[in-house]
Order: sequence, then C-alpha cells, then structure tokens
Amino acid sequence: MTEPYELTVAQAAREIRERRISAVELAESLLSRADAVEPHLRIWVTLDHERFLSAAKESDRVLNERGPQGPLHGVPVGVKDIYYTEGQETTACSPIYAGFVPSYDATSVAMLRQAGAVIMGKTVTTEFACGDPPPTRNPWNAAHTPGGSSSGSAVGLAARVFPASLGSQTAGSVLRPASYNGVVGLKPTFGRISRYGVVPVAWSLDTLGTFTRTVEDAALMLTAMAGHDPQDFSSSKLPVPDFGAAVDSQQSPPRIGVVRKFFYERADEEVKKHTEGTVDRLARAGAAVDDVKLPTDFETLLAAHRVLMTVEAAAVHEQDFAARPDDYGPNVRGVIEAGMLTPAVSYVQAQRIRRRFRRDMEEAIQAFDILLTPSTVTPAPRDLTTTGDPSFQSPWTTCGFPTISLPSGLSESGLPLGIQLAAAPFQEETLLAAARWCERTLGVALVPPEPA
Amino acid sequence: MTEPYELTVAQAAREIRERRISAVELAESLLSRADAVEPHLRIWVTLDHERFLSAAKESDRVLNERGPQGPLHGVPVGVKDIYYTEGQETTACSPIYAGFVPSYDATSVAMLRQAGAVIMGKTVTTEFACGDPPPTRNPWNAAHTPGGSSSGSAVGLAARVFPASLGSQTAGSVLRPASYNGVVGLKPTFGRISRYGVVPVAWSLDTLGTFTRTVEDAALMLTAMAGHDPQDFSSSKLPVPDFGAAVDSQQSPPRIGVVRKFFYERADEEVKKHTEGTVDRLARAGAAVDDVKLPTDFETLLAAHRVLMTVEAAAVHEQDFAARPDDYGPNVRGVIEAGMLTPAVSYVQAQRIRRRFRRDMEEAIQAFDILLTPSTVTPAPRDLTTTGDPSFQSPWTTCGFPTISLPSGLSESGLPLGIQLAAAPFQEETLLAAARWCERTLGVALVPPEPA
Repeated sequence: MTEPYELTVAQAAREIRERRISAVELAESLLSRADAVEPHLRIWVTLDHERFLSAAKESDRVLNERGPQGPLHGVPVGVKDIYYTEGQETTACSPIYAGFVPSYDATSVAMLRQAGAVIMGKTVTTEFACGDPPPTRNPWNAAHTPGGSSSGSAVGLAARVFPASLGSQTAGSVLRPASYNGVVGLKPTFGRISRYGVVPVAWSLDTLGTFTRTVEDAALMLTAMAGHDPQDFSSSKLPVPDFGAAVDSQQSPPRIGVVRKFFYERADEEVKKHTEGTVDRLARAGAAVDDVKLPTDFETLLAAHRVLMTVEAAAVHEQDFAARPDDYGPNVRGVIEAGMLTPAVSYVQAQRIRRRFRRDMEEAIQAFDILLTPSTVTPAPRDLTTTGDPSFQSPWTTCGFPTISLPSGLSESGLPLGIQLAAAPFQEETLLAAARWCERTLGVALVPPEPA
Repeated sequence: MTEPYELTVAQAAREIRERRISAVELAESLLSRADAVEPHLRIWVTLDHERFLSAAKESDRVLNERGPQGPLHGVPVGVKDIYYTEGQETTACSPIYAGFVPSYDATSVAMLRQAGAVIMGKTVTTEFACGDPPPTRNPWNAAHTPGGSSSGSAVGLAARVFPASLGSQTAGSVLRPASYNGVVGLKPTFGRISRYGVVPVAWSLDTLGTFTRTVEDAALMLTAMAGHDPQDFSSSKLPVPDFGAAVDSQQSPPRIGVVRKFFYERADEEVKKHTEGTVDRLARAGAAVDDVKLPTDFETLLAAHRVLMTVEAAAVHEQDFAARPDDYGPNVRGVIEAGMLTPAVSYVQAQRIRRRFRRDMEEAIQAFDILLTPSTVTPAPRDLTTTGDPSFQSPWTTCGFPTISLPSGLSESGLPLGIQLAAAPFQEETLLAAARWCERTLGVALVPPEPA
C-alpha cells in the first residue's frame, strides 16, 4: 500500500478533495518521514511542526466548511529559504539574513496559498543561492553532491518528504539538482513567475521553478504560480493557460531537435551513450528526431552568463558586502568580487551576446517542438566541495527559454541521469506536453535507497 | 496664396491625392526653397536633386496608374543621416561612416516608403548623434544653437524645407531642437518604432521620433512608422492604433498634471513665467490642472541616464574607437571614454534607478491624461559650442514615456518657447489627443524670419 508521503501532487489533491485523506493526515505522514530522513539528508532550514500542522488543520476546516479553495487544496510544498514567507524566518542560508522574518509572502508563495497549498517549511539553499556547498546530502550516495543551489528542495522531493517544492535557477540551480536526485525539475520562461519577494542573485537571470515527481505535477504547480505581477519588472503580461490541460491533451509524438554540439563536447562518455540510447527509444516510439545545427556559440554565451551573473550579484550585495565582507562564504564572495571588477562595457557586450543568442535560438527551435540535451555533464560528482557543473543549464537560463529535466535512467555507479528539454519562450504548453509524452515513453521513475 | 513648400503633411497628402498638385511640383517647390536657405542654414548632408525628383516622378506615375499607395503618398520627408537609406550614403556625420552606402532601408524608412512617402535627402546630425556642435544654424537667430542632435531635421522643418522629418532622441535630441526652432517634436514610447537600421547611440535609450508643424502631422507620421519588428530586440508587439483618428476625436479638455519640482528649479525666470501663463490659458479653456507631487528624484535619474548612455555608447564604438580614436570629435570621444571607465555595478545600479523611476512615474501619471513641463531650461542659448541642455528630455527618454513638444510662444529675445507633454507608456493616443487640444487652445504657430 502507498504511504501518504508517497503521493504525488495530483494524487494528494484528489485524495484530499474526495475526503479519502485529510490534510492533517498527509501532513503527519510527511512530518514523520521528514524526521526519519533529516539526520541523513539535512533538507531543512526551518521545519516548524506546529505551524505546518496548524496550517493543515485550517485547510481541513476550510475544506469541510466551504469545499476546496483551489486545485492544490491541502497539498504541502517545501519552499527554498530564499522565498519570503509571511511571519516565518527567511535566511537565504546567510548570516546577513539571519533572523529576518518577512511581513509578507513572495508573490509566488501567496499564489500557491491561494491555490490551496500548505507551506511545509523552508528548505536548505546554498548561501545566497550561489555555489558554496550545502549541508544537504544526496540520497543516492552521500559522498556525491546533491547539487545546488536548491539542494533541500531537490533532495526532499527525491526522499518523499514533500510532493512538490520550490527552487530558483540563475545558472543551473533547479534542473541540475533535479537531475542529480532523479526528479522532475521545471524552469519556466523568464517572466512567467513573479520573483517579487524572493532574495535575488541576478535580476536578469533569476527564474523560479519547481521540483515534482511527475510532469503532470509540474504543470499543476506552474498553473498555480504563473501570472503577471507589476511588482516584478520582468513579469510577463501574457495570459496563463491551464498547463494541466496541455499535459493531458498531447497524444502525438513531438518533433525533437537533439543539440549535440557543445553538449557532447562536454558530457562524459556514459552520459553521451545514455543520451543516444534515450533518443533512440523516443525515435522508435514515433518522435521525429533530428540533429540541430546551431550557428550559435554556447561557450561565448557561458562567458556572457558569468559576466551578467557576477555583475548583478555584486550590485545586489554592494552595501551589505561593503559593511560585512566576512559574513560571506568563499564562493559567493568570489562571485561578488568578480562582478565588482568588471567594466560596464563588458556587461553591455554580454547583454548583446545574450540578445544574439536568443534570436539565433528562437530561429533554430522553429522546426521543432522541443530541443533535447543531456541534463548534466556527468551524474552527481563525488565531490562535496562543489555543487556540480551548471553549464548545461546556464545557456537556457541566460536566454530565458523554458526547460524541464526528466529522470531517464541510472548510471553504472547507481546515480540518476536525466534529459533536459527546452521549448521556445512562453511555449510551456508545448514543453510540458512533449515532456509528458517522453515521460510516458521512457517509463522511468527513480526512487533512491532508504538513507541509513 | 500658400506656396507648396508651406504645406503640412496632411495638406500635401490631400492635395496630391486629389490631384491639385503633383508630387513633382511639390518636390520642385521644396528644392527651390531648400536651395535658397541652405547657404544660411546648413540643413543637408546629402540632397540629391535628381534622386529626389525621380522618386517624386515615380510617385506620380504610380498614383496615376494605381491610385495612392498609402496615406502619405507623394509626401517628402527629410531623414536624419543616421537612418540607413538603401543606395544612399549614410554618414552619421562621422569620418568612420564616410562613404558607407547601406544596402537596405532602416525599417522605419521602409515603412514610410510603404505609406507612400518620398525620401527627400539626408539631414545634418551632430557626429554620431552626440553633442559636438553641427554646422546647422538656428533660423530664428544664427548666433544661437539650433539644438541637436537632430539639427538639420529640426531646422529644415522650421524653415519650410520639408513638411516632416526624422530625428532620434537618446537624451533630448528630438524635443529640444523642436522647441529651439518652434516646431512640433514627437518621441513615442520606447519600443513603438523599430530602430533597426539606424546607427545607435545607446540601445536602451535610443528612440526615433519626428518633426512636423502640427500635431495632426505627428500622428500621421507615427501611424506610418510604428509597429513590431523582430529585428529590434526592444520592439513592442502591441497593436498600433490609427493615431490620426485619436487626434480628430478628442473634444473634452485633458486632465493635466504640471511637474514643477526639478523643472522649475532649473528653468530660468522667463521660461517659468511663460509656462505658468500657458498653464493658466489651458486651465481657463477647461483643462483640469493640478500640481504633480513626485516621490521621484529627477537628479538621480539624470545621473543614471549619463551612466547608461556613456556605457552603451562605449560598447557601440569599442572596436572603431580602439582602431581610429582620432576620427572621433571631442564630445563623442568624452562620452565613449566616460563609458569605458565606468564599472559594471554602476551600470546595473543605473538600470535599477531607471526601473524605480519608471514605476514611480507610472503611478504618478495615473491621475492625469498628460504631464506638462517646460520644453527646455531656456530658449536656444547664444552659444555655438554647445547644442543646449537636454535635462528636461532625458528623464522621459530614460523611462521610455512618450513625449511631445509644442511651440507655445516667443521669448523677449524673439526665440521659440515650448511646452513638453508626457503620457504613460504606449498611451500615444492620449498624448496626441491632448496635444491637439492644447495646440488648438493656444493657437500658436511660429514662422521664423527669412534667413539673410
């Protein structure tokens, strides 16, 4: 029998709506699961049992009195500790923010609550969502990095501590840990989800995203979180479709463009072989697969990404870093100092490189529904001093295209591998429908060993 | 009797459409006018009589064979020499571009041709549309600057050498020379007109605009030039209304917010007094007038504008300036060198200041149809080593709001004075309708003395 803590978002929402389980029962199951794995995995910054249970109790009361308040009624969500949560400490895992209790929710958190979701607690992020390694451990092998920066949200999802969680990606901080831990990671189009009330890394790159165990769940979460917010200058005014319907409706195999250039030059042999095998399976199932020839230079874009990120991070932290330099960890400090030393002309040229790359990619993607690449260069590296290489994510974060990572198998060493799919800007319906088709075709669901 | 060269855009288009004058007759009248004033005013970089007459002849042929090809059929337009014109030299008044003959039209020029307009020739710009003084002279008093950078387009319009002309504004290069020369200058919302094929000054600021003698003409020109262009990353996808209809339809007096803070601190006594008198006249005619209290700091925004402009200009010219520094004039050289010395964090902070200013202004303008300020700090200064002070334009260029300058009277020294109106982004219909009401209410049309 399935334990409540194993339910997906869609399952949990349905079970609660149909009164087969209460929000409190689900919360209790998740809390006992969380307590069991926490000493091994270090998922949480703040897990307040009382606060969570009382929110679940309130959710049950409302359900009984007024019926479900939204499609996620009673569904618990783990929240990366850079999202503001009203009345609950938000630290960004930095001494600078220690003790900071926001007086309001991030727009995305408020929208989740409006959809009926219950915030479970605040998950570990690397310091300021940069590259300093977190205490969180990879449930597949504790000697390997769990990835970052959304470490707690990725690991907690893999370990069945919550059915959905929130992350953010400035380089590769959603899809990389999703792939390292064998779960589904979604980064929608830049501008799709408001960043208001989320501690920034770099304004022109930061994109909020989700961890779930299925594509359907990713669609449900995105539908709840997407929408215009005048408080975020980059927030799109485009209408928000019902992404869940897109996932349900797709029947025909997608047109897939495989991007081998750059990705195959960097990926290790096992990842290349695995990706080719995965592409073969998709092609045999009917997908129209073709190689994508790109005029675009991904290496140059990576250099541009580094300039954009370090400069904007330096601007974000300018005052705090001047006042309290010793309260910054070595990686984030390096990011800020690199940004401080960069001339403005380099930043503007980086913006130009991004614009050209985006235009080239928009053209290249026209012949396809989605582009496919390996999710990561290697499976999670055996190195706890790093959070791994984000270079397969950064190009898509930089140009703002929506991407999703799906688990596609295990390496010989027993670590998750994944494929990364990308679609044109604001084509998340296409992305999710194609991802659902791939998920169904591949039939891969990964469950890590019990921590011990 | 009105000479053909005195016709407005609307009049010329109607006269040609109704066959009361031919495009060639109009062209001949304008050419003889141009030849008469050119030694005094120095309007042209390139005026090729044969090319212009042959285009006018072709326009007449098409009219006779197929009828009018657009609302501007046969109407001549003067084009600032930074717009690419197919097969015709485009120099930006710089040795760097000397001899450059584009193989295509700027999108805006192509759209004007599609609307039936005939390109008359290329008008003087300051070098690279920066602040080095041009040879062009102010027709009101040759000892005073004509303003810049769109010097030839502004002066040629005032001197009745063409009924409409094209300019561009990165700080104050359309509305300031419009006001100094007593004509109507329109800078639409950033993103409304494609900049593709126009020599850039600074990508995040450059906005194309027009000089005309009436608000109606400004609306006709904007309707022809506005629209989405995938070749310009900032080009808006919003639909383009018929701006001419907006100008016709307005009957009721507008709600006007007068911005005295900052503007009255900088304007001289005569300009302040004149502006108050103008506001009184508008109020007596029924406009609802109120003072605007702004939380926003215009001085800080001017500093941000300077950073954005110099840095982006330095990026534009990086390679050419490294190779040929001596081919740059002292002002544009100063701009580039300032940009080269600016750290990227300052640029990013300038972007933040702009975003905050824009948000504050969007809120402040909600209670009004338009905001009103004096167009310039003083009338055209008696100083040919400068093109005047753009500080009343730069805030609106920086935040991208659409603005228009209307002639509102003459100074004691006999120089034009103007009022500047601003509307919310993409509210050019509101701006033009209100401007038309003000134009009608003030009844000021300024004709400079004949040059001698």
